[in-house]
Amino acid sequence: MKLADLPTPCLVLDRGTLVRNIGAMARALARHGVPLRPHMKTAKSIDVARLATTGQPGGITVSTLAEAEYFAGHGIADILYAVGITPQKLDQVAKLNGVGAAVMVLTDDLDTAGAIASHRRPPRALIEIDTGESRGGITPDDDRLLDIAGRLGPSLAGVMTHAGHSYAGRSVADMVRIAEAERAGVVRAAERLRSVGHPAPIVSMGSSPTALHAESLAGITEVRAGVYMFGDLFQAEIGTHGIGDIALTVLTSVIGRRPGQLLVDAGGLALSKDRSTEAAPKDYGFGLVLDIDGRRSYGDTIVRRAYQEHGVVVPDPDHPLDLPIGAKLRIAPNHTCMTAAAHDRYCVVEGGDEVIAIWPRVNGW
Amino acid sequence: MKLADLPTPCLVLDRGTLVRNIGAMARALARHGVPLRPHMKTAKSIDVARLATTGQPGGITVSTLAEAEYFAGHGIADILYAVGITPQKLDQVAKLNGVGAAVMVLTDDLDTAGAIASHRRPPRALIEIDTGESRGGITPDDDRLLDIAGRLGPSLAGVMTHAGHSYAGRSVADMVRIAEAERAGVVRAAERLRSVGHPAPIVSMGSSPTALHAESLAGITEVRAGVYMFGDLFQAEIGTHGIGDIALTVLTSVIGRRPGQLLVDAGGLALSKDRSTEAAPKDYGFGLVLDIDGRRSYGDTIVRRAYQEHGVVVPDPDHPLDLPIGAKLRIAPNHTCMTAAAHDRYCVVEGGDEVIAIWPRVNGW
Repeated sequence: MKLADLPTPCLVLDRGTLVRNIGAMARALARHGVPLRPHMKTAKSIDVARLATTGQPGGITVSTLAEAEYFAGHGIADILYAVGITPQKLDQVAKLNGVGAAVMVLTDDLDTAGAIASHRRPPRALIEIDTGESRGGITPDDDRLLDIAGRLGPSLAGVMTHAGHSYAGRSVADMVRIAEAERAGVVRAAERLRSVGHPAPIVSMGSSPTALHAESLAGITEVRAGVYMFGDLFQAEIGTHGIGDIALTVLTSVIGRRPGQLLVDAGGLALSKDRSTEAAPKDYGFGLVLDIDGRRSYGDTIVRRAYQEHGVVVPDPDHPLDLPIGAKLRIAPNHTCMTAAAHDRYCVVEGGDEVIAIWPRVNGW
Repeated sequence: MKLADLPTPCLVLDRGTLVRNIGAMARALARHGVPLRPHMKTAKSIDVARLATTGQPGGITVSTLAEAEYFAGHGIADILYAVGITPQKLDQVAKLNGVGAAVMVLTDDLDTAGAIASHRRPPRALIEIDTGESRGGITPDDDRLLDIAGRLGPSLAGVMTHAGHSYAGRSVADMVRIAEAERAGVVRAAERLRSVGHPAPIVSMGSSPTALHAESLAGITEVRAGVYMFGDLFQAEIGTHGIGDIALTVLTSVIGRRPGQLLVDAGGLALSKDRSTEAAPKDYGFGLVLDIDGRRSYGDTIVRRAYQEHGVVVPDPDHPLDLPIGAKLRIAPNHTCMTAAAHDRYCVVEGGDEVIAIWPRVNGW
């Protein structure tokens, strides 16, 4: 099947670009001798996970228990569920771990640490450390660190942090500085644990920008990153990769035309309502319009407005677009994690217009 | 099962509120003696469709061919696919119509009208009329109206319009004015067709605000509306309904706590990144926080930031929220169509905390 034959809207994933992005991350981390635990929250696909774990220890990170169940069912045992656990969710983790998985959980809470330790099948757990994002976690010097570790007891497997505030960085210098704070903070927490006799075999950090730009990973045992696999306009704007490295686009059809405006069948659901490039140097609206091959843009032609199923494309005046109803275009997304989530599969190409595979995704919770 | 037992995040649909909203719309249209063709783009559920079509002729509106296939498979034949059709999609329509469905399509394009008429199994088609939204459609007095009608030939079934710009209205007076322009425009188009001998049995208009506030529906044969069933914060802000009429909320668990901030497990995927209330009188961030019963808000406590799986709740200083990890809350959404789309089912309650049913949804394309 060719791209032109696909029903729209749908996701197009370029395997060549994906493999290149995975290779770039692997090389960046190989410099430090630190392995990757790829975050599958973006791709949510076993086919992508197999590529992303090639040459790595094989463990992954997930953002939902639905992902944990899916990947465990496809034979990946070593899974970090990197969102703060609640006591209620421990039963589902235990169920997976009872049939061969080794799902690790995350906490920054004393009572939850107690619930983990006293569960009939306690999972291994990491303590979440806040190294500047101010979302989850306790700071490396927080008094509660040792209390939580004590409460976890034999469940304690180490510490983790996520410098999500790296997304607010706008230069390589910003990323280098944030990566070093992320590294130093989580290593400091591990050292505090070890100094009083707690084991901390895992010292986990990561976000795509800091994973790529870190100058040192001393003391880190694994790095997590996810969005680097596919890339997006926002990551291109903050310098994680080039605009030509975006592996994931939305194939769409022209469904309306009037002077100065095209309607396409990729709207707020197919593209997501994410507007992260609003805060970036260049605002791409709801996505950058490319030709069906995904190679050529039409100047600054973007999806300016997004209704549920309608996208309004306003052509760059220097690049008038006169296309018939049914003509196909591709849209590079603002935020690939959000865009992919509305779709249940990838239509995979390798540079050309031939669809070489369909890869399913796991959505929901 | 009780609400407190549900895994989070998930959708909670209050059947009592849903039935009340459906009744309010039915009464509003009964005043005019005009039937409803409910738009299922919000609910995407046969269980909801059965309630919304009660006492109506039974036809529905859909926004994707996946919806068309799903509802046809559940025995609803009369379906309007209310997004401009492309020639490529006609085969899928023909397939459904070959097994008992009667899917109607929409166009505003001469070449596409030709493709419809010359298809081996031509569907009935409506011509899309622009009555002020400036999205799809031709204006009622456009010369092309008669050309498209001529090209459609026996496929022509009438005209339709959607005053989506009613969402920009901020008062009942605005809605009344926009509804009258919507009505007058599409009736004018029907009259032009009939004046030269074309049939136009269907004269279809609608959006939730204009359907509820129209002072006259003279000449209209059916009204379409969808979001009124569930409601949301944006519709409450523009006066379509009250804030107590929101039938759909997201159940979430507290997963983190620090001074002045709670983390919940409903983030940008579970709530959507829709920020429509940003332009409304009151900005609710990514949603209004309610208690587990869905009845009580905590002043202006909202989801202030949304990451993929994390929502950051900032409590109103006058309503401090001291909740343990695992405590449950409900979030009223900005835009119910977008929020529902990330979920594959509704957990249905009727006022209380007992889950009385699970209703599936059809997502994707």
